[in-house]
This record gives sequence, structure tokens and C-alpha cells, in this order.
Amino acid sequence: MLVNGVYYRTVWMESSNVCMINQLKLPHFFEIYKSTNHIETANAIKNMIIRGAPAIGAAGAYGVAQACFEAKKENFLVHVKNAVKLIKSTRPTAYDLFYAVERVFKKVEKAKDLEEAKKLSLEEAERIANESVEACKRIGEFGNRLIKSGSKILTHCNAGWLATVDWGTATAPAYFAKRKGKQIFVFVDETRPRCQGSKLTAWELLNEKIPHAIIADNAAGYYMRKGEVDIVITGADRVARNGDVANKIGTYEKAVLAKENGIPFYVAAPLSTFDIKIKSGDQIPIEKR
Amino acid sequence: MLVNGVYYRTVWMESSNVCMINQLKLPHFFEIYKSTNHIETANAIKNMIIRGAPAIGAAGAYGVAQACFEAKKENFLVHVKNAVKLIKSTRPTAYDLFYAVERVFKKVEKAKDLEEAKKLSLEEAERIANESVEACKRIGEFGNRLIKSGSKILTHCNAGWLATVDWGTATAPAYFAKRKGKQIFVFVDETRPRCQGSKLTAWELLNEKIPHAIIADNAAGYYMRKGEVDIVITGADRVARNGDVANKIGTYEKAVLAKENGIPFYVAAPLSTFDIKIKSGDQIPIEKR
Repeated sequence: MLVNGVYYRTVWMESSNVCMINQLKLPHFFEIYKSTNHIETANAIKNMIIRGAPAIGAAGAYGVAQACFEAKKENFLVHVKNAVKLIKSTRPTAYDLFYAVERVFKKVEKAKDLEEAKKLSLEEAERIANESVEACKRIGEFGNRLIKSGSKILTHCNAGWLATVDWGTATAPAYFAKRKGKQIFVFVDETRPRCQGSKLTAWELLNEKIPHAIIADNAAGYYMRKGEVDIVITGADRVARNGDVANKIGTYEKAVLAKENGIPFYVAAPLSTFDIKIKSGDQIPIEKR
Repeated sequence: MLVNGVYYRTVWMESSNVCMINQLKLPHFFEIYKSTNHIETANAIKNMIIRGAPAIGAAGAYGVAQACFEAKKENFLVHVKNAVKLIKSTRPTAYDLFYAVERVFKKVEKAKDLEEAKKLSLEEAERIANESVEACKRIGEFGNRLIKSGSKILTHCNAGWLATVDWGTATAPAYFAKRKGKQIFVFVDETRPRCQGSKLTAWELLNEKIPHAIIADNAAGYYMRKGEVDIVITGADRVARNGDVANKIGTYEKAVLAKENGIPFYVAAPLSTFDIKIKSGDQIPIEKR
């Protein structure tokens, strides 16, 4: 997506550095955080320099590749294994992280030596990032069909392009609709306590020139009841086999309010967010901070 | 109620000054704001130095009495009439303000001269304040019966003693239950955007030594769904003839969530908050800022 007219992904690799848009500085400062080793990458995920399920999946994948670049020939697999363990420990809820890190590690395990591990892990991490971009673009295409010109959309937290590698999940349909020339308006929940809605989603929408308003989390029900919300779209941190969804605190509240007011409520997520190993949402570990 | 062991009302009169606890400074500073004329009193209501429907009712009543003390013999009624108009213009939603100001003004109209107007208006304002204290105490007595020992109570915004002259509405039952020796716990919604829950309700509960936790507005539904909320009690700015209630943004959200989760939801309000002239909530003007 564009930032002041320049194309960016949320996370990418430059030689053995993992680069990411520093989400803690937005919306006031646009800065690139450069992580020089996998421990810094793990800390960046833990401290939310990068956040959003698909985005931390890609960052984690690059972190494993990074661990290969740091490793010494002897016992490189042990070094990477420890890196995998550290990276997976940073965020308990988002499934994409485990999915991506394990995918890259499987390639490392198959490599016959360190040089091949470097090559395969980097390729796999790039593939994960590209697949994420492609999946989000498809979410945008499909979701766009749900949005009529004139629609007012409510979203909660940030599931825009900053939460993925590009395009976003919940807001991809809005970006698509806008590019197709539809008139849309987005209500952005502030999303306390970290305010990812007011700090990140609103900033993205501003860059895409989509009309929007930041509202107090308390106000979503008021606008729904007044008939001013046509559709609610949120992202997800993890989807269980039965369709249960874990997402930012408050998502359940918006879902109940949408039900009460007969407003369609959609969760937009790529397959990497689905955890078919678990039966229901009750088994999803919930992150508290 | 007690502040660091000293008894206070929220608002009272000292000679021709209206004194009030400065709610904009809490919880970090406990300060008394002294208003020396009715314009300052109107501004204090408008700027939320004092807020809460019954509290601004009493403040408005004192403001009318204050206008009598400022007036000159000639045309004192015109002066007071303008003061009434100004005070009523400060906050559109809370019915107590109109109720109280009109009650005092009726006494002024009946007075045969300025001296009698001063006496009658001050008496009536004091009566309104005392009635508010009595009504809130009764709300506490009645509401206490709804609270079992071990109950977890959710409240939204501040409808504690700072929102009234003493005791509060929504939290009066909790204060009563506590004094009767019941074990209770209160979830305090942060109540964005002004944070009256985290700034005022939590401070009151601290002074009353009632165990409590401030939660993000987004989190109330989560705790309800987990079965950790036994009862929801809020205050009201205005109650229409059909029982519709206007209260701080987000109250509707909590009510829908309580319904979804089968949790009893109560609105605690004195008669001065009832506006039987209007049929339904749709006619209640809603304050936006």
C-alpha cells in the first residue's frame, strides 16, 4: 500500500535484517525498525512494533530465516530450533505466527547443510509473505462484493494492511471498494486500551483517502441502532474448527450488537489464521496484557 | 460520603458562593471550586467541573438562588429569569437540571420582594439538595436487596456520589451492601471518551474501600460471557414516560450484552430524573461533544 505515495510492505528482509514499519510510532511518526538478529525480531513482535496476525506470521518467518543467517555450521539446527521456540513464545493468541514459523522450520530441517538452510528458509519466508499478500488481495476482491456504493462500514481494531504484509483483511474489501469507485464511509472503533483503531486503521484510511470517523468504543451500538452502520467487518487472531473466532477485546460486543440490530457481521481472515487442530474457541489461549 | 475520612457533599452553598468538588481534577487532586456568581456556576456545569444528573440539578438550583443574591431590587425577576435561561442552556440531556431550576424559579416568582426571593430560593435549593440525598439513600436501601454477598456488579460511567449530592444512584446499592457487611466486587467501565468510570467511580470506591477493577469499555461483554458479572446497575440522565432511558454513551451496549447473557440490568434514578412530559426516548435530546 502507499504511504505518502510510496509503496511499502509492512515487513520485509534486507540482507540479514528484518525491516518493519514501526507501528508503535504511528500515526505521528513513520519510521522503519531494522532488526539485526532473531532476538530483536522476537522482541519486536512481543513489544508490538509489528502486530496483526498475518503480519507477525511473516515477521516470525523472516525471523527464522534470520536465525539461519546467524548460525554457525556446527549445530545450526539447534540454534534455529531455539530461535523458533523464542519467536513462538512472543504472542500466544495469533495462529499465523505458529503456522509460519513451523513452515519455515520444516524447510530448515530438510536442508542438507547450513548454506541450503539459509536459501530454503529465506525462500519459504518470502513465499509466506507473498501468499499473505495474495490471500489478502483475494479477501478484498471477495469482500468488495458485500459492499454497496453508499455503504457505511464499521471495523474494530486494526486489520488493515499494517496487520498483514499488504492489503489487510477486514479493511481490504473497503480498499477494493474505494478503488472500484464506490462511495464508502468507515466507522473506526478507537479500540482501547491500545487504540489500534484510532492510531493505525484511521492512518491507513487517511493514506487511502477513504472518508472515516474515529468513534469511542462505546458509540458503536449507538450508530448501529440509528441505522447508520450497514455492515461490520473485523479481522481474527485465530479461527477454530467450529468457526469460533478470537480477536481483539470488544469484537464479541460488536457482534452481539450487530445481531441485536440485524446488521451483517463478517470476519475476514486468510487460511493461515485457521487452526483446525482445535475444536472450539474455548481452547484458544487469550492474551492478556 | 467520606473523602480521606472527612464528610463532603458534592455541592453546597457558603454565603452567596456555590462550592463544588472539582471533578475535572480527580482522581489526582481533590479541590473545591468556589463559584462567586451564577455565570461561573453555569460555566462550571457546562465545563463539567460538576456533572451527573442529580448533582447538576442541585448546582443549578443553587445557581438560581445565587442569582437572587446578585440581583438589584428593581427588576430582580428579569435578572433571575435570564440566569435561569443561561443555566438551563448548559446541558441538554439531564432532566434534573430543568426540574430543579424551575422549582427554584417558581419560588422566586411568588416572592413579594427581593429579600423574600433570596430567602425562598435558598430554602428551595437546600430542599432540593436534601431531597436528592434522601432519594439516593433510599435507592441504596432498595438496591441493596438486589445484591447478594459475593456479587460482582458492573457499572458504567459515574453514577456514584459525585454524580449526586451524596450517596449516588447506581452505586448507592453497592455502598449500602458494603456497609451491611456484604462481600462485593465492582467492575468499573473506563467510560471513554471522558473516563468518568476510571477517574471518578474508581476513586469513590477506593474511598469506600470496595474492591473493584477498572476495565476497558470493550471488556464488559467478555466478563459477562465468562459469567463473572452478576448484575449491571447504571444511572440515567433522563427517563421518558414509557421507561426509555438516556444515559452515557455505551449504556445501550451494556444493556444489549446483559440481555444476551441473561444478566439482570437495572437503572437507578430518583424521581427528579423522570420526564413524564415526553413519551419515549426518541424525544430526549442527546448531548454531543
